[in-house]
Amino acid sequence: MTTGENLATLLPSAARSQFRAGLRRPTSGYSAGYAQANLLALPREQAFDMLLFAQRNPKSCPVLGVLEPGQLSSTLLGGGDIRTDIAAYRVYRDGELVDEPSDVVEYWRDDLVAFLIGCSFTFEAPLVEAGIPIQHQLQGVNVPMYRTAVRCESAGSLSGPMVVSMRPLPPERISDAVRITSRYPGVHGAPVHIGDPRQLGISDLQAPDFGDAVEVPAGWLPVFWACGVTPQAAVMESRPELAISHAPGHMLITDLPNASLQVP
Amino acid sequence: MTTGENLATLLPSAARSQFRAGLRRPTSGYSAGYAQANLLALPREQAFDMLLFAQRNPKSCPVLGVLEPGQLSSTLLGGGDIRTDIAAYRVYRDGELVDEPSDVVEYWRDDLVAFLIGCSFTFEAPLVEAGIPIQHQLQGVNVPMYRTAVRCESAGSLSGPMVVSMRPLPPERISDAVRITSRYPGVHGAPVHIGDPRQLGISDLQAPDFGDAVEVPAGWLPVFWACGVTPQAAVMESRPELAISHAPGHMLITDLPNASLQVP
Repeated sequence: MTTGENLATLLPSAARSQFRAGLRRPTSGYSAGYAQANLLALPREQAFDMLLFAQRNPKSCPVLGVLEPGQLSSTLLGGGDIRTDIAAYRVYRDGELVDEPSDVVEYWRDDLVAFLIGCSFTFEAPLVEAGIPIQHQLQGVNVPMYRTAVRCESAGSLSGPMVVSMRPLPPERISDAVRITSRYPGVHGAPVHIGDPRQLGISDLQAPDFGDAVEVPAGWLPVFWACGVTPQAAVMESRPELAISHAPGHMLITDLPNASLQVP
Repeated sequence: MTTGENLATLLPSAARSQFRAGLRRPTSGYSAGYAQANLLALPREQAFDMLLFAQRNPKSCPVLGVLEPGQLSSTLLGGGDIRTDIAAYRVYRDGELVDEPSDVVEYWRDDLVAFLIGCSFTFEAPLVEAGIPIQHQLQGVNVPMYRTAVRCESAGSLSGPMVVSMRPLPPERISDAVRITSRYPGVHGAPVHIGDPRQLGISDLQAPDFGDAVEVPAGWLPVFWACGVTPQAAVMESRPELAISHAPGHMLITDLPNASLQVP
């Protein structure tokens, strides 16, 4: 098992090799300086709806890349294989989760279009660099993610709620976290909500819908970012025949440098 | 005829009314503070390719909105009609320009998907506010636009060159122009090239491919931004059966405030 410090300096290609070989674990803290991505693959038939859903919900679904039918790699993957290089996958049939395998070679089809969507793990490195504590890293668990009562704008056959990730922050560092993350719109950008989770329709912070609960230290506020699990929630609601995604928190580590995503 | 100052304070709905009534003129300087947009409408069959082309060429094709088949308006248009509310249109059949009408009611089809793509006229207001001179406004002409030798990343049936708009700037204001425009990635963002036009494959600045030539004052540099006419160049090269666009420089003036497009 690699230690925390080693994870941060691991090159994306080396990380993908470990996952290809079967390692399963959340990828927060991996390969500092390189963008992480959500996967959602859908049949060609739903591809326009998905791209339109992403265009209409850019905070939840910032598209970093699209693999066309038959395409298994791209520069984002540095020659890797989208079917094997993620730590854990989810397979949905008619909106039901039917498997959570370590690779999806047997499930993949030639008509699938794979959408790579920015992940907020990407901006955790600059947050850590600025001395902002990331609780789920410190507690050694997956980031907590929640379905909200906020509806996404629908597109054709796809509709669903916005999903958010949550990081508790000390009040005096929230401005810095807003400033830093807003510079990365390609990986969800600035928070969508700060404070009271009930206003998002989240009744119990300790019962996330995806990932693990983290302790919110006394006097800190929960801060919520739009999350790339949002398309999975749309899949669960909209029930396309087949969908393949990463398992929440188990991201594709891309070769894309964070610096290329940064706006002033 | 409204004067320059009146144009800037004209509300988008009032501007659209004038164009609906038949006025034809470039829209640089109109409705300061509101985003302007390029139009490209294609049959549903090519819609995924177009959205993918936009995703892969975000500097040239930042998508502000998409009207689905049968949809003629949206909040961007404030109840207006996409077929009538632009000052001038272009109609392409098999990639050939066949008409440049004042409305496209007779050409529109129920299967058309309309893409509204950000236009750099949007950030001219904050440039003017910062005291940066906009030559084509001062000279009372359309902005000059050029096909470049830079190839866009293709998507399915769509391929073509990047088109750029050009504004000459005094050297001491170029940094400010970069800083200001980079805050508006939704309307092309920062310049793609500063200086020597030959490096973009432009042999004669005085012979733009679209719009009008402007004088480059002695000692100033030409500064180039990616342009939303890029999809029209792709249409000319890729020859879809039907395409309807705005006429270059004659933009849709939307109800979208610039402020909502601004990143820090």
